[in-house]
Amino acid sequence: MDGRDAVTHPAEVDVAVVGAGVVGLGIAWEAACSGRRVVVVDPAPGTGASFAAAGMLAAVSEYHYQEEDLLGLTLESARLWPGFARPLGTEAGNLSTPTLCVAGDAADRQALADLRAVQEAHGLGVRPLTVREARSLEPMLAPAIAGAFEITADHQVDPRRLVAAILARLGTGAVIRQRAESLVWAGDGARVVGVRLADGSELRAGETIVANGLGARELAGLPVPLPLRPVYGDILRLRVPESLRPLVTATVRGLVRGKPVYLVPRADGTLVIGATQREDGSDAVSAGGVYELLRDAQALVPAVAELELYETTARARPGTPDNAPLLGRVAARWAPGAADDGGAPPHAQDVAGLIVATGFFRHGVLLTPAAARICVDLLDGRADERWHAFRPDRFARVPHETHASYGRTA
Amino acid sequence: MDGRDAVTHPAEVDVAVVGAGVVGLGIAWEAACSGRRVVVVDPAPGTGASFAAAGMLAAVSEYHYQEEDLLGLTLESARLWPGFARPLGTEAGNLSTPTLCVAGDAADRQALADLRAVQEAHGLGVRPLTVREARSLEPMLAPAIAGAFEITADHQVDPRRLVAAILARLGTGAVIRQRAESLVWAGDGARVVGVRLADGSELRAGETIVANGLGARELAGLPVPLPLRPVYGDILRLRVPESLRPLVTATVRGLVRGKPVYLVPRADGTLVIGATQREDGSDAVSAGGVYELLRDAQALVPAVAELELYETTARARPGTPDNAPLLGRVAARWAPGAADDGGAPPHAQDVAGLIVATGFFRHGVLLTPAAARICVDLLDGRADERWHAFRPDRFARVPHETHASYGRTA
Repeated sequence: MDGRDAVTHPAEVDVAVVGAGVVGLGIAWEAACSGRRVVVVDPAPGTGASFAAAGMLAAVSEYHYQEEDLLGLTLESARLWPGFARPLGTEAGNLSTPTLCVAGDAADRQALADLRAVQEAHGLGVRPLTVREARSLEPMLAPAIAGAFEITADHQVDPRRLVAAILARLGTGAVIRQRAESLVWAGDGARVVGVRLADGSELRAGETIVANGLGARELAGLPVPLPLRPVYGDILRLRVPESLRPLVTATVRGLVRGKPVYLVPRADGTLVIGATQREDGSDAVSAGGVYELLRDAQALVPAVAELELYETTARARPGTPDNAPLLGRVAARWAPGAADDGGAPPHAQDVAGLIVATGFFRHGVLLTPAAARICVDLLDGRADERWHAFRPDRFARVPHETHASYGRTA
Repeated sequence: MDGRDAVTHPAEVDVAVVGAGVVGLGIAWEAACSGRRVVVVDPAPGTGASFAAAGMLAAVSEYHYQEEDLLGLTLESARLWPGFARPLGTEAGNLSTPTLCVAGDAADRQALADLRAVQEAHGLGVRPLTVREARSLEPMLAPAIAGAFEITADHQVDPRRLVAAILARLGTGAVIRQRAESLVWAGDGARVVGVRLADGSELRAGETIVANGLGARELAGLPVPLPLRPVYGDILRLRVPESLRPLVTATVRGLVRGKPVYLVPRADGTLVIGATQREDGSDAVSAGGVYELLRDAQALVPAVAELELYETTARARPGTPDNAPLLGRVAARWAPGAADDGGAPPHAQDVAGLIVATGFFRHGVLLTPAAARICVDLLDGRADERWHAFRPDRFARVPHETHASYGRTA
């Protein structure tokens, strides 16, 4: 088959999504809702970072200094969440509970107050509470906390239920439980026409969306290197005994001696406590991480000691150099067939048939509706200028060397 | 069938052992080695307290004040361990490593020193070490420890491997994976002739040995009440990364701010940390318990923070009023058919066909060879006067009311 065949041959599906974590499934779901025929490729759907994630929709409380570009995207996604979740009903476990940011000591309170000043400057609603007010909202908070801030805009969802709800709606025929080995390029080296699977077969698709988180590092044939690194996190799941329910009603995000910890209550009486950030290369649950989470969670809510610890999980999240996602199309100058036109303006023309959506780091669940919207807009031929800052080729300086051997179909 | 039939009818097996934890299997193994046909009854062998146990053979370091009777039994069992383990080869994971008792602070050191004085008075070898000496033996010990004592006589075994090794040698035909519902009595109410199983069938046995730990509370037809209570413990299993091996070579038992903690290194590079003692009625892993174990273990060996926490387990151990086992035969005065001869000396005659071996609390693994030896001696008609203090009917004051309905076979 040559390049012309690849173009004229009808694609087996409209959209192939590589990766069935929350982001990949969210994109697949939105694309399916747009009337397209979608297939998702993943050897083990929902078992990566999505399996661990606490699912906080925390655009405001997750805001960090000097991440204004990201803030625009997270706020947009928070705005999209209710409409995204509505057709999934209550199955996704989304709760409109607010968030309390709690300071362990005076220094932690000062740090949260400084952040609040910046948050307010961006128009984000953050309400300071006295310890008394905080404890009247959440009586299980320790008397020794130094202060609290209420963020009514930040909510939560249960990522495992979200994954299950979308998978159920897509149907088993829409999921290929295999590893995607490489992108398949048309003979002209200008267009991606699908993915090659672990069993050697090819899934032909009009558009291929690379949304497999850190797995994108092992996907051959990408036109640009994706600067992803694993940032590991330990996360605990606990069961609140009947006598202590509800332990907390809001999501409690704490800063304890400068370290973040969060307690996310689920509707089923369980509690998720996270999350450490480790770049030690170990995907095993860290004893020190578990210890610190339990210590700091107890500092905020002493009754955590009375809970059942029923699951400890460690997973890697896909980090990027600027903590923002790699989201969008890739300039054709990086494609295997592109002429060496070093002087051409970047993004003048994009590789056809390819969208990248990875690198969501700590924001995968929150950013899922925005990623889904942006991808489907791209499928429709619309590129929103606001999100150009997240293009996956923004770090590319030299042509990607590893794509060459996957550059052309036979 | 009447009583005479029960006596004359040949038993299906020589010995029925109820319970396939370490103790039950140890007894079954010893009885099988004596040439008897043995069957073990347990719906899930090795999944109770044996599954959690660290397996310390710690007659000396587990010695508590005023438990002299128990000390005699634990020392006897420690003496029997090598001969018991020998035919099992190295499969049982037994290690002859010594034990270090480490004090977290000065008060802990004083408590250990006081205990040592009593231990030495009983002829138990305990060698005080300076912090420098202790750290030269175990370089990973924290510099801040207050002192240490070496106990060369205390060793360890891996209870899960021990269970697997004995089960493999007994063969699948020797295990009935069912719950034992009740003892079966002969028509004269003076002899136990087997057990009734969950499926309604009866296993006839010349001797029935009740060795199912806390499960004995649910076994109907016992002639005396067994005063067992669940004492829960949380226990952690961690993996030592290659770069930190060996983390410790000895079993490290610590006293940290008055609380015991132990770290038991396995030959496979894992580490067992235990154990809390809770009587809160919860068989779920306690978040507070896990926190305290990690905190205190790190106080002794800070590098514990670098390990992988791969398993947390909670199990109940069978506690008794005097912390000593319920081990031996039961006086016939408690049997259903016994005349009301209140004036007869206790133990004058024992119920035939019945031996009880439960209530081993924290000492089940250590006491397994002694329990096995004592039971087989009883099968042989020999009762060692030294162990009369552990008779299961020592707490009985009134006839057991619950046995009546199970008193006679049809």
